[in-house]
Amino acid sequence: MEKREDKQEEEQEQVVNPWEVTAKDGGKIDYDKLIDKFGCQRLEEPLVDRVQRLTGRPAHVFLRRGVFFAHRDFDEILNGYEKGKKFYLYTGRGPSSEALHLGHLVPFMFTKYLQDAFKVPLVIQLTDDEKCMWKNLSVEECQRLARENAKDIIACGFDITKTFIFSDFDYVGGSFYKNMVRIAKCVTYNKVVGIFGFSGEDHIGKVSFPPIQAAPSFPSSFPHLFSGKDDLRCLIPCAIDQDPYFRMTRDVAPRLGYHKPSLIESSFFPALQGETGKMSASDPNSAIYVTDSAKVIKNKINKYAFSGGQDSIEKHRELGANLEVDIPVKYLSFFLEDDAELEHIKTEYGAGRMLTGEVKKRLADVLTELVDRHRAARAAVTEEMVDAFMAVRPLPNMFD
Amino acid sequence: MEKREDKQEEEQEQVVNPWEVTAKDGGKIDYDKLIDKFGCQRLEEPLVDRVQRLTGRPAHVFLRRGVFFAHRDFDEILNGYEKGKKFYLYTGRGPSSEALHLGHLVPFMFTKYLQDAFKVPLVIQLTDDEKCMWKNLSVEECQRLARENAKDIIACGFDITKTFIFSDFDYVGGSFYKNMVRIAKCVTYNKVVGIFGFSGEDHIGKVSFPPIQAAPSFPSSFPHLFSGKDDLRCLIPCAIDQDPYFRMTRDVAPRLGYHKPSLIESSFFPALQGETGKMSASDPNSAIYVTDSAKVIKNKINKYAFSGGQDSIEKHRELGANLEVDIPVKYLSFFLEDDAELEHIKTEYGAGRMLTGEVKKRLADVLTELVDRHRAARAAVTEEMVDAFMAVRPLPNMFD
Repeated sequence: MEKREDKQEEEQEQVVNPWEVTAKDGGKIDYDKLIDKFGCQRLEEPLVDRVQRLTGRPAHVFLRRGVFFAHRDFDEILNGYEKGKKFYLYTGRGPSSEALHLGHLVPFMFTKYLQDAFKVPLVIQLTDDEKCMWKNLSVEECQRLARENAKDIIACGFDITKTFIFSDFDYVGGSFYKNMVRIAKCVTYNKVVGIFGFSGEDHIGKVSFPPIQAAPSFPSSFPHLFSGKDDLRCLIPCAIDQDPYFRMTRDVAPRLGYHKPSLIESSFFPALQGETGKMSASDPNSAIYVTDSAKVIKNKINKYAFSGGQDSIEKHRELGANLEVDIPVKYLSFFLEDDAELEHIKTEYGAGRMLTGEVKKRLADVLTELVDRHRAARAAVTEEMVDAFMAVRPLPNMFD
Repeated sequence: MEKREDKQEEEQEQVVNPWEVTAKDGGKIDYDKLIDKFGCQRLEEPLVDRVQRLTGRPAHVFLRRGVFFAHRDFDEILNGYEKGKKFYLYTGRGPSSEALHLGHLVPFMFTKYLQDAFKVPLVIQLTDDEKCMWKNLSVEECQRLARENAKDIIACGFDITKTFIFSDFDYVGGSFYKNMVRIAKCVTYNKVVGIFGFSGEDHIGKVSFPPIQAAPSFPSSFPHLFSGKDDLRCLIPCAIDQDPYFRMTRDVAPRLGYHKPSLIESSFFPALQGETGKMSASDPNSAIYVTDSAKVIKNKINKYAFSGGQDSIEKHRELGANLEVDIPVKYLSFFLEDDAELEHIKTEYGAGRMLTGEVKKRLADVLTELVDRHRAARAAVTEEMVDAFMAVRPLPNMFD
């Protein structure tokens, strides 16, 4: 989709940027290589333990099972927190479709955990302008999608006294725009080409966008929340494909006298067809949507979820399942909270004592429950609640 | 100042763009060539006559003496006006310095005439963001300069019931931002490089800016003024170096379903040292500032104004002055309203019967009066008036 003339060498390699995730030669994404290439840090056991100690609660499944596997200066956030210095969270979504799939929920479920555990404010950016420019949707359609997506986000359970959701079309301006200009001044065209791979035939909206995603990393972009708190640090939970934006942001921050934002970065939620495939908006069978019924979920899992089980029951009993490539087990490791049960399934299935059908059945139950719960929560989100979350307002108790 | 790697061929030729005006080989700007290169139209006698007829008042000095010498679709504005279809005016200023010189006043004096003659609303953009990015001034300093410059602009006598002045740092957002995004989507990077000559080492703020100067050309950027009037045409009085912005804007307009803005374009106000020189912010002796005292004005004219008179009185009496290069005459043709007196001076001076000293004395009187009047008007501009002109508000009687 994106031309990347200067990156032909890499196109045989894996490509990970905000608009494209492609593994090398149809294999799996090599996350270790990605960490080295991007220059971020591995999120290892001692840091997870520290989070548990500091928050006084068990680490989130996504943390203890390595879904969030990389970071940038997350330890500095914890150092400050230990000394009583709070921070704020920033995450976002590009509203290009009405129906979210489970992969879309991952950062929001995790961000809700972070908000609850650390008791900190949160800003959520809906980049309706980005989607308008990249997907060739109208301004009005992107704004409508932003509002629909806001309902799904609110349904994840965010605390309205600590959360500000904004759409770029509504919120760009004033202090936010001033930071956009300050950031843009520090970044050359050659630099964004190096980071994002734009070509001369790309429209200038693309070139203009990176400062818009960078601006929320600085507290002065939110004077109604953080006025006089320029020293407040920012932690960004996101999938690792967003790292290029924040590499750029971190480069620029010291020149503007701001803290570099810290990051905590997840791997990608795989397609039903396997980790080599991509979830594709044009193929609804590549993902479970939060709008899917129990029956659809069951059918999609049975029909499309790539299995690591053997071809025949006899062979399966003998060799066991290949857990490395098995999507039902992968999905369970995201969404089955019970560590003991997950371990039990992996052991039994890996040894061939449990069959694919049994694992898929368990997964269908887990996902149906998750989706039902989400759907009920979303149905309870009123237009007034959306207005309330998106109102530009102070949050007086956001650190309590 | 600007790198223009792809334009080396043109650098031996004249260069006219928003950031650089350089004549060929130290000569004068060739305006005929500029019209052909830019593809705009000559503003000729019949159109000036038509303006007089339609407005029922004499054409402004700048119009009847060819200071505004080129246009784009100005005739369409008049066609509509003849049928009772009003339009709105859009002009602007990049606030990079506190003190304005006479050249800065030219577009505003002319725009005031247009507003009075056609009885139409006017939006004035102060591109504080542009200056922050190009001049490496801080956001705060540019905002301060924008406000100071607004006072000089208001002192030109604009009608507060028909005039909205805005600074980009204040006003970018909402409907204005939506138009910026719509415009940016239609313009490739290669296109802006072709138009403006940016290089890869230029920062992305420069690449992002053209849609910001384009957006005021569309009435939907001002919902508080023109809501439901998407069909309203826009006329932009400006110096011809701004043409590249509006060439781009006119390209884009039909794709967005908007009218192309019309333009009426002036030549440049020359430096005291002659039409080959540029007025330079770093050389205060190259221009008369609206803050200059009568004594300073007199001294600058006597010392620096390039004379077309001959070296000796004898030779002057014999050959007469070369009016083509004489700056005092040029300045008088901008600011001496009395056609008969101007004609008299040109005849007498050209024939050698009038001396340079006499012409310079007359010019000093004319400019001192102009500057004194401006200074008095500016002193009367209060902070409250600035707030009132810059308030985002409806203008209910703007077409009366």
